[in-house]
Amino acid sequence: MTSFNHLKSVIRLNELAEEPYDLTDEDNLQPKRIESMVSEALGLKLLYGTERVSEITLQALSDLAEETKVLEKMKSMQSGEVMNCIEGYESENRQVLHTAMRDFFEQANEAPKAKEASQLAYQELEKLMEFLRNLEHNDQFTDMVQVGIGGSDLGPRAIYYALKAYEKPHRRAHFFSNVDPDDGVSLMKELDLSKTLFVIVSKSGSTLETKTNEELVRHYLKKANLDPKNHLIAVTGKGSPMDDPSRYLASFYIWDYIGGRYSVTSMVGCVILAFSLGMDRVLSFLRGASAMDKLALKPNIKQNLPLMSALLSVWNRNFLGFSTSAIIPYSQALFRFPAHLQQLNMESNGKRIDKRGHEIEFDSGPIIWGEPGTNGQHSFFQLIHQGTSVVPVEFLGFSQNQYKEDILFQGTYCQEKLLSNLFAQSLALATGQKNSNPNKVFPGNRPSRILLATKLDPYTLGLILSYYENSVAFQGFLWNINSFDQEGVQLGKVLASQFIDLFAQKRGKKDGKAFPLGQAYLKHVNMEEGL
Amino acid sequence: MTSFNHLKSVIRLNELAEEPYDLTDEDNLQPKRIESMVSEALGLKLLYGTERVSEITLQALSDLAEETKVLEKMKSMQSGEVMNCIEGYESENRQVLHTAMRDFFEQANEAPKAKEASQLAYQELEKLMEFLRNLEHNDQFTDMVQVGIGGSDLGPRAIYYALKAYEKPHRRAHFFSNVDPDDGVSLMKELDLSKTLFVIVSKSGSTLETKTNEELVRHYLKKANLDPKNHLIAVTGKGSPMDDPSRYLASFYIWDYIGGRYSVTSMVGCVILAFSLGMDRVLSFLRGASAMDKLALKPNIKQNLPLMSALLSVWNRNFLGFSTSAIIPYSQALFRFPAHLQQLNMESNGKRIDKRGHEIEFDSGPIIWGEPGTNGQHSFFQLIHQGTSVVPVEFLGFSQNQYKEDILFQGTYCQEKLLSNLFAQSLALATGQKNSNPNKVFPGNRPSRILLATKLDPYTLGLILSYYENSVAFQGFLWNINSFDQEGVQLGKVLASQFIDLFAQKRGKKDGKAFPLGQAYLKHVNMEEGL
Repeated sequence: MTSFNHLKSVIRLNELAEEPYDLTDEDNLQPKRIESMVSEALGLKLLYGTERVSEITLQALSDLAEETKVLEKMKSMQSGEVMNCIEGYESENRQVLHTAMRDFFEQANEAPKAKEASQLAYQELEKLMEFLRNLEHNDQFTDMVQVGIGGSDLGPRAIYYALKAYEKPHRRAHFFSNVDPDDGVSLMKELDLSKTLFVIVSKSGSTLETKTNEELVRHYLKKANLDPKNHLIAVTGKGSPMDDPSRYLASFYIWDYIGGRYSVTSMVGCVILAFSLGMDRVLSFLRGASAMDKLALKPNIKQNLPLMSALLSVWNRNFLGFSTSAIIPYSQALFRFPAHLQQLNMESNGKRIDKRGHEIEFDSGPIIWGEPGTNGQHSFFQLIHQGTSVVPVEFLGFSQNQYKEDILFQGTYCQEKLLSNLFAQSLALATGQKNSNPNKVFPGNRPSRILLATKLDPYTLGLILSYYENSVAFQGFLWNINSFDQEGVQLGKVLASQFIDLFAQKRGKKDGKAFPLGQAYLKHVNMEEGL
Repeated sequence: MTSFNHLKSVIRLNELAEEPYDLTDEDNLQPKRIESMVSEALGLKLLYGTERVSEITLQALSDLAEETKVLEKMKSMQSGEVMNCIEGYESENRQVLHTAMRDFFEQANEAPKAKEASQLAYQELEKLMEFLRNLEHNDQFTDMVQVGIGGSDLGPRAIYYALKAYEKPHRRAHFFSNVDPDDGVSLMKELDLSKTLFVIVSKSGSTLETKTNEELVRHYLKKANLDPKNHLIAVTGKGSPMDDPSRYLASFYIWDYIGGRYSVTSMVGCVILAFSLGMDRVLSFLRGASAMDKLALKPNIKQNLPLMSALLSVWNRNFLGFSTSAIIPYSQALFRFPAHLQQLNMESNGKRIDKRGHEIEFDSGPIIWGEPGTNGQHSFFQLIHQGTSVVPVEFLGFSQNQYKEDILFQGTYCQEKLLSNLFAQSLALATGQKNSNPNKVFPGNRPSRILLATKLDPYTLGLILSYYENSVAFQGFLWNINSFDQEGVQLGKVLASQFIDLFAQKRGKKDGKAFPLGQAYLKHVNMEEGL
């Protein structure tokens, strides 16, 4: 297989990148471009008229997709083939089947492995429905706390806040992730523990933070004279150390083919989302995610939004050379969504070898960051407009707001002011501005695109989540890297356990093992006396 | 004045950057280095043994500070000289006196302009004390909402959450910033408006989002049969359209020499912080900030932490060529602090011209981003360890936690596990790891530093805030750019008002003005009927 830099389409794209489409030329950025440069499907629109691409660039990008066979790879992934592997080396060697976690609707995948995974997932969903029906009857619990970290935290947290407008009355969700004791202690003080359920989420059943935090929860429950067994729910792999009915009120399963950062639509997200929002909303959310999975199999980039998005991202990263990308939702409810996408993208594609184990000679995943607009405009947008580093932006916008309330002020609604700002930013970044005062010069030609939907409801958020999951997978397929493992977190874990041993030694709990570098760090620490 | 690229020290640093200090060489990264490479003052330690610097690099960086006269500039700034200007062009032409907002303690600046500013600031503080004493008496108000955006939001919000452990009983703070109507509406539904005060913060008194959101607040207060005049407080410039006692319960002043992103220690932050945390905590916080301002005037980088930090940042940015920098606090209470620093740094130093109006030929401010650890380890750290882009990291850590509660689990406290992870990450990034499996190879030589304090209390947070404010200013001084204006946000504002006019026209409220590009965007929008 030809390596990335030697692909025909890559060579062509490198030529095109020498003179990318000039958005500062008035003749180039005409209304027709904004109207027509759109990929559209399922009620979503991806506007890319303010990216630095011509129709010729798009054709070359489309050729790149074909040359790297990304649609075949997507189909293989969704059908349950082993995609999480490095050829010729020890690796996780797993299937990648998060799409099966929601494949309960139209055009279900008939491949035996996908079908089996989706049947298993549906069993868990039915267990959850039953569990929640029983909860309704006794009406004891008003609050649920998700205890998990990384993939077991960021996605469910982002989705919950995004859909809080749809929350059931008298139900609230909370999140406890950090091993920082203040994270848990402050939450314990705020809750009525007798009315609270805790979902402990760890696929391996042995995540340091989550096991520690479970212990903290058990400690506070006992202090309140409550039996932890009646308040704790496990979400874990079958047979893990946490798969122990004697210690949990209920257990729900996940499988090794569900990566943490892709696990929102599995029991990792569904338990707390169904508790707080209701099962009907969760089913809409899953339906949206599944519909986008099907769309990701379509060859035409005018319809296949995640593929179009992936190709534009690769254009900005590998051919225009930008090392970061900002995601700016013009929706306050999505304030934690960039943090989830940061994990999804950077943990998946922050890799330095390809699937054959060769060190890559091109750039893989960029740094993803972002905050909601219009807030960002009053913060880091100064740099985006006039800094020395160019930051491609993906805006998210909605025609309508979630609550059916708004005020008319000086002739327009807030929602209209919000959209006005979004569009204005994309235009300002593209066109720039000439001026005789150098401080009022905007260089322009700073690329952006807009993902536009009618309203942020559960179905639409399912579409959007899956749009990003599939876009990230496509980028990995284009680069031929493994987007589904995370070896890069291992070294830190090993060293952390050596430091933890050092602390334990200081307390005389463990035998000494030499770790001079670690001891040098500890000399700077000033621990509390008498703890 | 010599331009940056032609400075003697810059030429020297470019030579040194050809072979930066190799942290993967075991002989180079010895315990002694971790122990001794520390800048230390006021109870804070800056550990930089895992940066790619030798003593020779540090000497050259120190020479750069001298050659660019940054200490003189810092002194000029704190003394009230006009630092916010571009020579020979129309510019804001203002003093920069946020340090005067807290100069009430030791070694007060005696320069007449600084003294005058600090006296005016103290008058406002006294007005606030009086106002809060009266509130205590009638005991009506339990909640306060900050209505502001950008500098009037991110800083106060970050500080409030950082110090929530010190909150007064029965007092809570909230923040409402986005022009997204869902931001305000969801908050209005959650509050008992009869017990709530709103601080409306806008220096100009005309910020689009804030004025719109004030209107939304007034609308909901009236709907609840409450008189807005009894619930609204103004923080604004004297003589601004908001300086109108007939419409506000109280008014507090700020001045044009206080930039939004530097305004936390002015009335912009103090009103809500004093209401929720108490005046004694706010005074400790201010005392810390002021102590760090004085430290920023010291010539020795072994003591002057903000200068050391600025020099290391410039080394990473301009000589090692890294375009982003992550700030990772190992403290959940600091979860919004990186967003504030993102604004502080990127809005200050995301500039493309120098103070003489010349386009710069080197990189200015990097992209600043971050999330708390250990959470980040389970998210984007994959890329930081094994991605193709190197990300310098600044870790923040504390020996002790805020709440005096913690649990011993498997021989160590949570706080010890937290610190262990912080140290382990800095070490793993530096040393890397060789392995025959290419997926288990860590290249190492990825720079980081650690800002370490005993405990996150008000005084310490004042130190840390001022450490960053002064570090950002030093970076601007080193580059000879203006860190105190934000011309880059203007173009978006102008275009946004054109879009808003289009929406108003659609409703027949305004005369038509041609804006074909704007109309092209609006064709994609699907507004709600009947609003």
